[in-house]
Amino acid sequence: MKKTLKIGIVGLGRIGQIHLSNITTRIKNAEVVAAADISENLLDFARRHGVENVSTNPESVLTNPEVDAVIICTPTPSHVPYTILAAQHGKHIFCEKPLDLNIEQILAAKEAVELANVQLMLGFNRRFDANFLKVKEMVHGGLVGDPHILKITSRDPNPPQIEYVKSSGGLFMDMAIHDFDMARYVMNSEVVEVYAKGKVLVDARIGDEGDIDTAITTLTFANGAIGVIDNSRKAVYGYDQRIEVFGSGGMTQTKNNTPDTHEYYNEKGGHLSLPLNFFLERYAESYVNEINVFVASVLSGEKVPVSAHDGLMATAIAIAAKQSCQEEKPIRVEEILNALMA
Amino acid sequence: MKKTLKIGIVGLGRIGQIHLSNITTRIKNAEVVAAADISENLLDFARRHGVENVSTNPESVLTNPEVDAVIICTPTPSHVPYTILAAQHGKHIFCEKPLDLNIEQILAAKEAVELANVQLMLGFNRRFDANFLKVKEMVHGGLVGDPHILKITSRDPNPPQIEYVKSSGGLFMDMAIHDFDMARYVMNSEVVEVYAKGKVLVDARIGDEGDIDTAITTLTFANGAIGVIDNSRKAVYGYDQRIEVFGSGGMTQTKNNTPDTHEYYNEKGGHLSLPLNFFLERYAESYVNEINVFVASVLSGEKVPVSAHDGLMATAIAIAAKQSCQEEKPIRVEEILNALMA
Amino acid sequence: MKKTLKIGIVGLGRIGQIHLSNITTRIKNAEVVAAADISENLLDFARRHGVENVSTNPESVLTNPEVDAVIICTPTPSHVPYTILAAQHGKHIFCEKPLDLNIEQILAAKEAVELANVQLMLGFNRRFDANFLKVKEMVHGGLVGDPHILKITSRDPNPPQIEYVKSSGGLFMDMAIHDFDMARYVMNSEVVEVYAKGKVLVDARIGDEGDIDTAITTLTFANGAIGVIDNSRKAVYGYDQRIEVFGSGGMTQTKNNTPDTHEYYNEKGGHLSLPLNFFLERYAESYVNEINVFVASVLSGEKVPVSAHDGLMATAIAIAAKQSCQEEKPIRVEEILNALMA
Amino acid sequence: MKKTLKIGIVGLGRIGQIHLSNITTRIKNAEVVAAADISENLLDFARRHGVENVSTNPESVLTNPEVDAVIICTPTPSHVPYTILAAQHGKHIFCEKPLDLNIEQILAAKEAVELANVQLMLGFNRRFDANFLKVKEMVHGGLVGDPHILKITSRDPNPPQIEYVKSSGGLFMDMAIHDFDMARYVMNSEVVEVYAKGKVLVDARIGDEGDIDTAITTLTFANGAIGVIDNSRKAVYGYDQRIEVFGSGGMTQTKNNTPDTHEYYNEKGGHLSLPLNFFLERYAESYVNEINVFVASVLSGEKVPVSAHDGLMATAIAIAAKQSCQEEKPIRVEEILNALMA
Repeated sequence: MKKTLKIGIVGLGRIGQIHLSNITTRIKNAEVVAAADISENLLDFARRHGVENVSTNPESVLTNPEVDAVIICTPTPSHVPYTILAAQHGKHIFCEKPLDLNIEQILAAKEAVELANVQLMLGFNRRFDANFLKVKEMVHGGLVGDPHILKITSRDPNPPQIEYVKSSGGLFMDMAIHDFDMARYVMNSEVVEVYAKGKVLVDARIGDEGDIDTAITTLTFANGAIGVIDNSRKAVYGYDQRIEVFGSGGMTQTKNNTPDTHEYYNEKGGHLSLPLNFFLERYAESYVNEINVFVASVLSGEKVPVSAHDGLMATAIAIAAKQSCQEEKPIRVEEILNALMA
Repeated sequence: MKKTLKIGIVGLGRIGQIHLSNITTRIKNAEVVAAADISENLLDFARRHGVENVSTNPESVLTNPEVDAVIICTPTPSHVPYTILAAQHGKHIFCEKPLDLNIEQILAAKEAVELANVQLMLGFNRRFDANFLKVKEMVHGGLVGDPHILKITSRDPNPPQIEYVKSSGGLFMDMAIHDFDMARYVMNSEVVEVYAKGKVLVDARIGDEGDIDTAITTLTFANGAIGVIDNSRKAVYGYDQRIEVFGSGGMTQTKNNTPDTHEYYNEKGGHLSLPLNFFLERYAESYVNEINVFVASVLSGEKVPVSAHDGLMATAIAIAAKQSCQEEKPIRVEEILNALMA
Repeated sequence: MKKTLKIGIVGLGRIGQIHLSNITTRIKNAEVVAAADISENLLDFARRHGVENVSTNPESVLTNPEVDAVIICTPTPSHVPYTILAAQHGKHIFCEKPLDLNIEQILAAKEAVELANVQLMLGFNRRFDANFLKVKEMVHGGLVGDPHILKITSRDPNPPQIEYVKSSGGLFMDMAIHDFDMARYVMNSEVVEVYAKGKVLVDARIGDEGDIDTAITTLTFANGAIGVIDNSRKAVYGYDQRIEVFGSGGMTQTKNNTPDTHEYYNEKGGHLSLPLNFFLERYAESYVNEINVFVASVLSGEKVPVSAHDGLMATAIAIAAKQSCQEEKPIRVEEILNALMA
Repeated sequence: MKKTLKIGIVGLGRIGQIHLSNITTRIKNAEVVAAADISENLLDFARRHGVENVSTNPESVLTNPEVDAVIICTPTPSHVPYTILAAQHGKHIFCEKPLDLNIEQILAAKEAVELANVQLMLGFNRRFDANFLKVKEMVHGGLVGDPHILKITSRDPNPPQIEYVKSSGGLFMDMAIHDFDMARYVMNSEVVEVYAKGKVLVDARIGDEGDIDTAITTLTFANGAIGVIDNSRKAVYGYDQRIEVFGSGGMTQTKNNTPDTHEYYNEKGGHLSLPLNFFLERYAESYVNEINVFVASVLSGEKVPVSAHDGLMATAIAIAAKQSCQEEKPIRVEEILNALMA
């Protein structure tokens, strides 16, 4: 086993910068040896973090013989081709979610990775957050008994730009996909059926693009449990991220994280801090933790904990949710998988 | 306006005793002048509370010329005939929920009451609980802006006896009906569509009776908002009664009430009190408040705040939920109303 | 053992009315058979609650042969003479706190009660509040191990009228005396030394009367533990009543009670309910509980749980606190007792 | 203004390592160019973090012409001589608390620093913690009105080794000194009088060394407010760090930080996470923040926010507390200052 994993990063946007900065400062046994972005400006960011080998050509990083593993942070349409290229060059791969909006593409990436015998880990970072980890441990450890009801509340502080909405794949594929992954993860059971009710209540322009901004999605799990996710694109009080699992043995839930724990009381009432503002702040530690796990898994040869299969299933649930919402009836996930893999 | 409302109570079971005891000790401007129950033992309870005119014949109370208003706490099948009889004798009526499981019967009662020009108030006591009242005031007062998402968690500490399940009308009609009423009340908007996913996860015998014990129900409101109710017949940690309303202007939620506010910390963790055990304890004050409102409304001639229409709508939603659960598709409440009133 | 305790109440001010109303409606095995107050208006209150034997002469109640027990709610200076008179006539006595501001007077009452072999219970109602009871049970049950540190926060929403301040005996005797009793009760150990730092920060007129409105009092207990009480006459956010006990095995604390459990979040922050406003509302249940315990103790012949000795000790601590504050040094409670009993 | 501050660190124990690691990874505009420790092993730690100039001789760092500023993390007795040496060589200084246990020594350091016109900042890191910062901002911003009562709870999870106790200066100088600094900081007013009650309740060996392990300390501030600090060397539930400020306009308080926000309910009760374990974990961010502020202040030439005067006053309060505890009477801080500077 090598002692230090040499990493190449492609895509130095918001999330690429976070990974680069984290690896430089907080990740054990890893260093960034190459980075690529189409923007020269962003390459400066890499240079300032001590990466000498920078390029505007992502392929040069993905095929660089010095590189052991790549982190793919480019826009979604390039995820699969870059994954395949990297796999063909024997690199282990950490790829931001979603792997693709299209199940055939996901399967193509999965096949390439298996063929090349490299690891592919997807960036479902919330799995590595202390709150969700605790709930998952309690559920898997039997503290809630047989799980009966899962509740996830997941609300953004503000909708994305309309331009982004157009190419995002929609609320289920872009936003709720994290919640679908969390549902499978924490319940330790596959989602077999989805019913989604969606609405345009936040911004009519989102509806003009054929998307929704508010949704309640009912999930049925293979183990018999049921669950519900409520999503909104705009919570004026900030980023609302809560989970609850109820079962035969008890119930566990998490509250939002806040910048401090103060309470203030005056003649008008009691006052509390708002939740941490948005995902970069709220999930900052999870981005460190997920790369630490990726690096440790690759170095030790152990299986990474978030696979292409996980990406496949989350995507299938998102497709089912979108179809349920449009057709106004529950959809079985198996149908989606069968239809798309036919 | 009379100063004191003379009340007759029919049915001295658990809830009838509560009303009698509350009127004797905590309700202003009212006294119980007559009471009836088929059990002689229960009449003793009335005598000990100073009711001299007791009888094993409910009709004698419902037709008693001395009585201004009646409180009907007998089993559900008698609610409508007793309401009609009382109305025909000019009594104002407070009737425990549900008015009936059958919409035609409800309409018959409604008609009799209107014909007699008396008031009929239904015992949706949770409307008079401090937590729900606060949330309703905040929503109606505009503090959450336009409501987008309603969440109700409603879980009992233990399932009822199987014998009771058989005649209860099922989880939606017997238990969730309170939540359906609360949904309409707090959102100030009618439910137009229902999708319910039900499961038997607590006790297989409940399934043997054709009922369910766990459910997630999605509601669509006339004002465009959506909502979700999760129900379970058995929460091992006690009676779980929470509500949350989210909208364009903010979010409000309530926690469970506890017998005390202590926290305890030792080397094993922090510890909190469990919720108040069950509805008699949790909603004790609401039973006082609802009768106070009933008495005040009748004495002043103002309209009671929970009408036969409210009973009708809650029942229609329950029927829609049951049908949705069986047919595995969303059901419009209007269809239920039209079909049953056809 | 008699089945029903016949009670006479002297003094129908705020607290006398509460006891009368509670006995009428919520206390088991007791009835009010006589009541006295110097105000004719207040006697109407008693008549409306069904007390036929009312009088402007308290002595007629205290000596009434029909009366088994008396509740003394008159101003403090009459507590001891009325207690002695009632004892001489064989009545059991429930007396509001403080028994007296003077230790010799307290001892005189104690002696009369012992001589007459009747019970005397003092109205330290907070002992019967669910929060304090829970903490006391946890401490006495060993859950905090050996107690090391007691913390009591006790702040009123508003200072009393200046006229009242003049005759109140001062902050320690009038307000903190409840906290001194609670300290002894919950720690199950006598206070042996007191150091108090007092300030006039709320209202200069309180200082003009030689009193203080803000204080921090350090207590040393016979069992080696130490404690601190902080008092203020004016908390703009309402009545602040909290306790914490820390020991070798853990820590337990209580929060304030609120009218409801809602939380509200908007773009300005999170919001909570304020504490229940003042003692009549906050401690409403404790007034019911204490009389229930008094009645049950008298009827069964068991010792009442709050004795003249408790009044004596709380008063001695208050005197020590006042002296400590004035002399700016710690004072031993034994000195106070010795000096006053010399 | 230089763009990057070149820092030398002397002492690479626990806290020295934290500063080195933080500067390497998380501090802007600073780099560690030299480090010294008497242990060769610890120098390896520095080398692994890219510090090439390492030495077993602290003086070589303190006098190194390349070094702009030094961070002193050696044992307390060397703080003043190293501060003076560094000042004489024109270095800005960040020194861990306490500067010294002796006030004359502190004054000598202060003088040297002023003479050399360099900055000296003390490591009262809790001032840079989000919770305490929030409370301080609220108090200084007038949200609690005129402050009346300060409450600090500060309890360690475990007592230090007895060997450490011997040389620590005792509970007030070693542990409570952080709380004394916080009291001055948050109240924005000097402490003028101290009364401390100390006990040996945790470990008799601490008493054998002439120290205490449990204390309640009453503070009187120049602005008229009063405060109380309760300390324990052993809280079995972990590191307990809370603050509350009460005033004419309201009250603000903070709760402990926890590793996650979960709540768990089963039939035995509700359960919460324990506080973050100890100061390295609880105050991790504050160590980053304080060095960021130090670096920014030195680079910009602005005054550092924690001065030798702050160290002087915290030490004087600690001496007063110890003397009060021994002499069993309140002590004025001015007396301490006068006596020691005479």
